[in-house]
Amino acid sequence: MTHQAAISLAIELRFLADRLHDPASTVAPGARIGSALDPEALRQFTEECDVVTFDHEVVDLDALADLEAAGAVLRPSARTLRIVADKLSMRSALAEAGIPVPPSAPVEGSTDLERVMGDWPKAVLKLSHGGYDGRGVFMVDGWEEAFEAVAGHLAEGSPFIAEPHLELERELAVMVARRPGGQLVIYEPVETFQVDGQCRRITMPAPLSGDLRRQAMDLGRAVAETVDVVGILAVELFVVDGQLTVNELAARPHNSGHHTIEAATTSQFENHVRGVMDLPLGDPSPACTAAVTVNVIGRDTETDPRDLLTTALSVEPRAHIHLYGKQPRHNRKLGHVTVCDDQPEAAAEAAQRVAEALGSLEVMG
Amino acid sequence: MTHQAAISLAIELRFLADRLHDPASTVAPGARIGSALDPEALRQFTEECDVVTFDHEVVDLDALADLEAAGAVLRPSARTLRIVADKLSMRSALAEAGIPVPPSAPVEGSTDLERVMGDWPKAVLKLSHGGYDGRGVFMVDGWEEAFEAVAGHLAEGSPFIAEPHLELERELAVMVARRPGGQLVIYEPVETFQVDGQCRRITMPAPLSGDLRRQAMDLGRAVAETVDVVGILAVELFVVDGQLTVNELAARPHNSGHHTIEAATTSQFENHVRGVMDLPLGDPSPACTAAVTVNVIGRDTETDPRDLLTTALSVEPRAHIHLYGKQPRHNRKLGHVTVCDDQPEAAAEAAQRVAEALGSLEVMG
Repeated sequence: MTHQAAISLAIELRFLADRLHDPASTVAPGARIGSALDPEALRQFTEECDVVTFDHEVVDLDALADLEAAGAVLRPSARTLRIVADKLSMRSALAEAGIPVPPSAPVEGSTDLERVMGDWPKAVLKLSHGGYDGRGVFMVDGWEEAFEAVAGHLAEGSPFIAEPHLELERELAVMVARRPGGQLVIYEPVETFQVDGQCRRITMPAPLSGDLRRQAMDLGRAVAETVDVVGILAVELFVVDGQLTVNELAARPHNSGHHTIEAATTSQFENHVRGVMDLPLGDPSPACTAAVTVNVIGRDTETDPRDLLTTALSVEPRAHIHLYGKQPRHNRKLGHVTVCDDQPEAAAEAAQRVAEALGSLEVMG
Repeated sequence: MTHQAAISLAIELRFLADRLHDPASTVAPGARIGSALDPEALRQFTEECDVVTFDHEVVDLDALADLEAAGAVLRPSARTLRIVADKLSMRSALAEAGIPVPPSAPVEGSTDLERVMGDWPKAVLKLSHGGYDGRGVFMVDGWEEAFEAVAGHLAEGSPFIAEPHLELERELAVMVARRPGGQLVIYEPVETFQVDGQCRRITMPAPLSGDLRRQAMDLGRAVAETVDVVGILAVELFVVDGQLTVNELAARPHNSGHHTIEAATTSQFENHVRGVMDLPLGDPSPACTAAVTVNVIGRDTETDPRDLLTTALSVEPRAHIHLYGKQPRHNRKLGHVTVCDDQPEAAAEAAQRVAEALGSLEVMG
């Protein structure tokens, strides 16, 4: 999707792709095959590029810091990536800047775990680094469950962040795009719906009071400036007791901004490209009254949305279907469907019907 | 732009590109280098594809007809391409179907020319095959001018079509998308503005009475069915004395549909891909009240819109800039700019300012 945006601005995108049949290398020419965890592959790749950016967090941060020190232009910077990639460092950087974050504590061993589970018998334990789409996140009730869930990881030296179980009123996301000089645009906040920690649906606009909406956008700005992001930043927020706190960040185009392809004047992908290329940012305003994006989640290795396209396209002529060309697998995000409408309920209903026709796993009501 | 649309549906597009540095081969992987006028290149290329479609008319029609007879799937078909590529055959096919076309006469030699210029002292002479963007079109006043303009071509065996000079009230275009089985969608008619026969600006919606708008859309449908198009068809219309006639056709995504990328629910590019892949067509409805597209026309070989992007993007944050990655040249279409607004005048003004900032040749007022 970033390549689609780059084409419009005649900006040549080159990918470092893990495998020859990675979706990126099937849509863009000249992909280099290699791992973003391999310092030598990263070095060769950065030498070919004026600017290097990222669409996932599985990168060798030390190697990137060295390359940046040697002159490579990384946007976002190695420092931003390091803050955002690690939940413990991210939460402490935000807390230091006076940004509200949920109560939390680091868990590096069984002593920490014991103390934390004493304070918060019902808790959420999140792998500090490398968790994704609900993986590495454990909702636990009591010490025994907690120990069973995380002891193996702790023994391997992977720290966790613990939070008390919170009664969430809503989960929100605010996308922010920012240029190296600090120019910044903020998208309309959206409500996100998770199942087992995996985002399933995005609704724009989030049903918020004017005050809370403004606060969410202000928080987006404050976080973007605190972590000094360049390009797109996704700021995930909790609403608890009518108050906002910052849950997670992603310094890249993010699932909670996929609706912006059709439902914003300038998409998150185009503004990511503009931001990292230090070009003036585009208007983030909504392009329609309401929009809902529903993810297409893999059911099994057999059910491929590409095989169901004819049926799915006939369900709803207004639907925008995006398939990622990935091999289907249980719980894998294989695509998404966006519908714009004057009524969010009608948009949600239509998008869900199309996602179901594409064979998506349980689409929540 | 067709590749951008194909990516969303996970449909792999392969290009037959004239040169290694053709824009298509810089945005999509696996382009085959070869000419669409070379039967052998066409044969090899069609063997690699499930479906072959076209984004220009400079193709070997005989070779394509042979390949189709041998089993290649061409959409549109060789027959449709043949009707549309030749103005004389196109006009007579439409006239036979009862579709209004401007008065015209074939000019194959000086006898024809003499008779035509006797009937219509002020005339337009159009090369029947291969004219493009105002090239091969001559506005002539009297026999001498006419002879000077076209005698060389006639001697080479290239026939013309002659029309009396018409006082055009407006020029319109209607885009139609159609599937093999006949499913068809019609886009909102647009007004097009030409300078020296080259389209410079597109306004949606065209300022028409409800009656004329409906007639234009009905004509779009009738023409698409008459030429049995599959994929996108651009139907260019004249308004003369309040009446519609069909001027030209293009059986491919066309400049007069570029606004549909942002200003329609489903773009002409996506509906072209859907049509030729025999997938259900998407909703062609306007996605905004009004939109204007202004072409970025090359000034000279030095002025490259890619070098002017930073300035141009700062002119108007709402603007959608599309650059084609072509080498600049006088009069060459290098890109386009679309702005959506509630008022067509405001959209036109903004789009023109951005096109000017991109170094475009004279943008009409």
